[in-house]
Amino acid sequence: MNLTNTLHRCLQQTPDKIVTIFRGRRRRYDEFCNRVARLAGALQASGMKTDERVGVLALNSDRYLETCMAVWWGGGVLNPVNIRWSVAEVVYSLDDCDTGILFIDDQFLHMAAGIAKTARRPPVFIYTGEREAPDGMLSYETLIAGHAPVEDARRGYEDLAMIMYTGGTTGFPKGVIQSHRNIWAGCIQRIAETPPIKGGKTLHAAPLFHMAALSRAINQFIAGETHVIIPAFNAREVLDTIEREGITELGLVPTMIQALIDHPDFGTRDLSSVKRLVYGASPIIASVLERTMDLFPGVEFYQSYGLTEAMVVTTNPPESHAEAGRRSGRSLSVGRGLYGTELKIVDEKNDEVPRGIVGEIVICGPSVTRGYWNKPKESADALRNGWLHTGDGAYMDKDGYIFIVDRMKDMIVTGGENVYSAEVENAIGRHPAVMMCAVIGIPSDAWGEAVHAIVVTKGDAQVTEEEIRQHCHQLIAGYKCPKSVEFRPEMPLSGAGKILKRDLRAPYWEGQAKKVN
Amino acid sequence: MNLTNTLHRCLQQTPDKIVTIFRGRRRRYDEFCNRVARLAGALQASGMKTDERVGVLALNSDRYLETCMAVWWGGGVLNPVNIRWSVAEVVYSLDDCDTGILFIDDQFLHMAAGIAKTARRPPVFIYTGEREAPDGMLSYETLIAGHAPVEDARRGYEDLAMIMYTGGTTGFPKGVIQSHRNIWAGCIQRIAETPPIKGGKTLHAAPLFHMAALSRAINQFIAGETHVIIPAFNAREVLDTIEREGITELGLVPTMIQALIDHPDFGTRDLSSVKRLVYGASPIIASVLERTMDLFPGVEFYQSYGLTEAMVVTTNPPESHAEAGRRSGRSLSVGRGLYGTELKIVDEKNDEVPRGIVGEIVICGPSVTRGYWNKPKESADALRNGWLHTGDGAYMDKDGYIFIVDRMKDMIVTGGENVYSAEVENAIGRHPAVMMCAVIGIPSDAWGEAVHAIVVTKGDAQVTEEEIRQHCHQLIAGYKCPKSVEFRPEMPLSGAGKILKRDLRAPYWEGQAKKVN
Repeated sequence: MNLTNTLHRCLQQTPDKIVTIFRGRRRRYDEFCNRVARLAGALQASGMKTDERVGVLALNSDRYLETCMAVWWGGGVLNPVNIRWSVAEVVYSLDDCDTGILFIDDQFLHMAAGIAKTARRPPVFIYTGEREAPDGMLSYETLIAGHAPVEDARRGYEDLAMIMYTGGTTGFPKGVIQSHRNIWAGCIQRIAETPPIKGGKTLHAAPLFHMAALSRAINQFIAGETHVIIPAFNAREVLDTIEREGITELGLVPTMIQALIDHPDFGTRDLSSVKRLVYGASPIIASVLERTMDLFPGVEFYQSYGLTEAMVVTTNPPESHAEAGRRSGRSLSVGRGLYGTELKIVDEKNDEVPRGIVGEIVICGPSVTRGYWNKPKESADALRNGWLHTGDGAYMDKDGYIFIVDRMKDMIVTGGENVYSAEVENAIGRHPAVMMCAVIGIPSDAWGEAVHAIVVTKGDAQVTEEEIRQHCHQLIAGYKCPKSVEFRPEMPLSGAGKILKRDLRAPYWEGQAKKVN
Repeated sequence: MNLTNTLHRCLQQTPDKIVTIFRGRRRRYDEFCNRVARLAGALQASGMKTDERVGVLALNSDRYLETCMAVWWGGGVLNPVNIRWSVAEVVYSLDDCDTGILFIDDQFLHMAAGIAKTARRPPVFIYTGEREAPDGMLSYETLIAGHAPVEDARRGYEDLAMIMYTGGTTGFPKGVIQSHRNIWAGCIQRIAETPPIKGGKTLHAAPLFHMAALSRAINQFIAGETHVIIPAFNAREVLDTIEREGITELGLVPTMIQALIDHPDFGTRDLSSVKRLVYGASPIIASVLERTMDLFPGVEFYQSYGLTEAMVVTTNPPESHAEAGRRSGRSLSVGRGLYGTELKIVDEKNDEVPRGIVGEIVICGPSVTRGYWNKPKESADALRNGWLHTGDGAYMDKDGYIFIVDRMKDMIVTGGENVYSAEVENAIGRHPAVMMCAVIGIPSDAWGEAVHAIVVTKGDAQVTEEEIRQHCHQLIAGYKCPKSVEFRPEMPLSGAGKILKRDLRAPYWEGQAKKVN
């Protein structure tokens, strides 16, 4: 139940096996462990004490994974910084949890001076790029070469492993505290329901600073299999990498899936090595899922639901994606609670609601955080009697399958009726001209809020506002149909590929306190 | 990571599913949970406080499983009493951990008066048999009928779940302390490497007071599948039950496997429902394993190694039992450490030994006990720097597979050479007339210890001491061959079906301090 234990096991059983593949660079488990133990020594020599926070501001790479493990091996606490943030936001998170060391790669070097100038305690920078380290920064490879391996600190189960900041789509960042036990338990119970593919190569295309990708990486260490890493999602590079490396397993968010299957090269590639596609993090449009399943016949589909505060907590297995599940709509569920995790749907009085009724998801289990860093009030709001209140609206069917309808705060109240944006988005998404859409509530004197749709069309497809509205009227109740439709060339996306509804809503609600987050 | 959580999940997802089948009595998960919650209320009304120890002295039954869950649901601590013990031994364990309530079935009623008279604090007896409760005892069914369901105490991860006494083969009983986290983590990591059979029915034939069977039962609760229970191992009843209930999975110790395949009815039964056979707890004779694999073609074989102090910690998967594994001998390994558990082989100075060299197995992981109840000295001896010293002798091959050779104290030193009894037993076991055998060291003026074999022959097979010795000389080095052979009609077996070498050794070593345990 400590995260470096995975490495000891691999070193004992499969020292020669390839652990990381990054742009042609391959490392074996024995090399990787040796580098981790040296880097841990370097971190200690650079001032990392037990429980010291160490940040990483970098794109995905093999070094990202080495860094995570080295921080834990040396007794430190990881702070994986959101790569979409401004200098001010980065500094906020570093200051908030007093991060003393910051790993940084080429992509973010331009932010270093600003960070050094404004952080309360300017961090020691470690440059993880492939070139020479800039002045005033330590060099990653020089540190590894210059330090002897140290013993694993073998942190205790309840010791702190990570402070991961959550925010972006939901307001001011809060540092989610995760112990070694939280992360290990979350990962092992997921493995228990999704057995690792023996000899599998998993592709990390989603950003590793997010829980979804990082927990998949830890699963792969537990199973002792191989990571293939690309710096960031790019449809062409994903296709290239699947073909070149024989990727067996992908973890993607819906917008990435859509970009992948819409890529002009998609049909010309050999993707037959893919055995499993794990998706989640935001609702998938039914028509996109259907198309994807048709394009990846024989592939195991798993939908998962998770959040930084609790890691992955549900899984909808391949069985639900088979014919019967597709017909019944169960393929659109995020699944049921993992072994060891309980989920309930409750109303505002905290009473469980009947099946089929929408309420808030609350979660209890071994992966649930003990709270937010230095935020006792927010922690107490989120965690009540051991149950995490997620703010996610959902209902449960008779067999315990959960269907997310919306963030509770994304729910639109129009003319006294509740409208769940996901339902409207699913309807709009079935129009053949629509590539991506988002539905929000905007102020309306007549209705309180009015349903408003933002649409990105496919390539040169043409569609009018009126056609979208008529299309919706054939599928959903009139009060749910958009009162207005806006076309845009692209959507604002978060680092994790989620549509930033906050940014879409902001201009409409300016000057009004409500609904901006 | 608490053991009642499994029930909440099943109640939410599969309330109608059958959870227990015992001699034709079938209960659904919703009934089972209701009975558990009522029985927990009855226990509380009968004086069970939080952390109070509750004993069970009974053969396997559906009620045994209800009782375990009710104790945990009500906030108590389970003490599953060894059913082979004398009154004095039972009383020792009850007194040692101050057990206030004792569940007892028909089989052990004759011990009740003795227990009541000699226990420091006479327990409240709860009669779990099918008849009317004897005078002075509470009735199991009346308690359930007479109490309303109570809320789950939802014990914390580090709260005590069980004190399980270990002994019999290794001397004075010690109460092994297991927290909810210990047991949950041990089970979930096993599930992660041995995915549950969907819709599976597991047969509990091995005694539930032992860790091996009880942990398989908890796995089945985690997976939400069905338990089929027989009171105790009996080859005919196992065969009947497999055929009648369509058992998919069996957990047996080697002596049970042997009795099963040697049963005259074996060849006439339809055992095609069996998909998996899990075995362990003591070394299996190579020839028995080979025969069993031939008799169960297409069945997944898993060998496991575990101990009360750490639950199951290794698994040797079906791959090792395939053709190549059988040829290389890897099918005889107990496998590698489970995800999350580390094992090392160390010498008496606690240094890791090279691969292939015999030493003591030490274990570190989330299922390892925090120590023995009220035994600080024995706890400190067994647990050093977080590593459990098992007393089991083994070597590890280049890929991390572990081969148990002996209990360290079963190792025979003869003329300065180490002889591992398991190796000699394997050689003797290949003789066609031998049903069961055990090899021990006995005092010898010439050799220090001499290798001595005890043999039980098959039915009417005839074999002489000299033939056994000549047979061994063809297979193993001369110094390993038995100097003497003794024939017996049967072996002394422990409750778990292990051969009681202590009892075999005792008469030879009487008056000499060494080697009796």
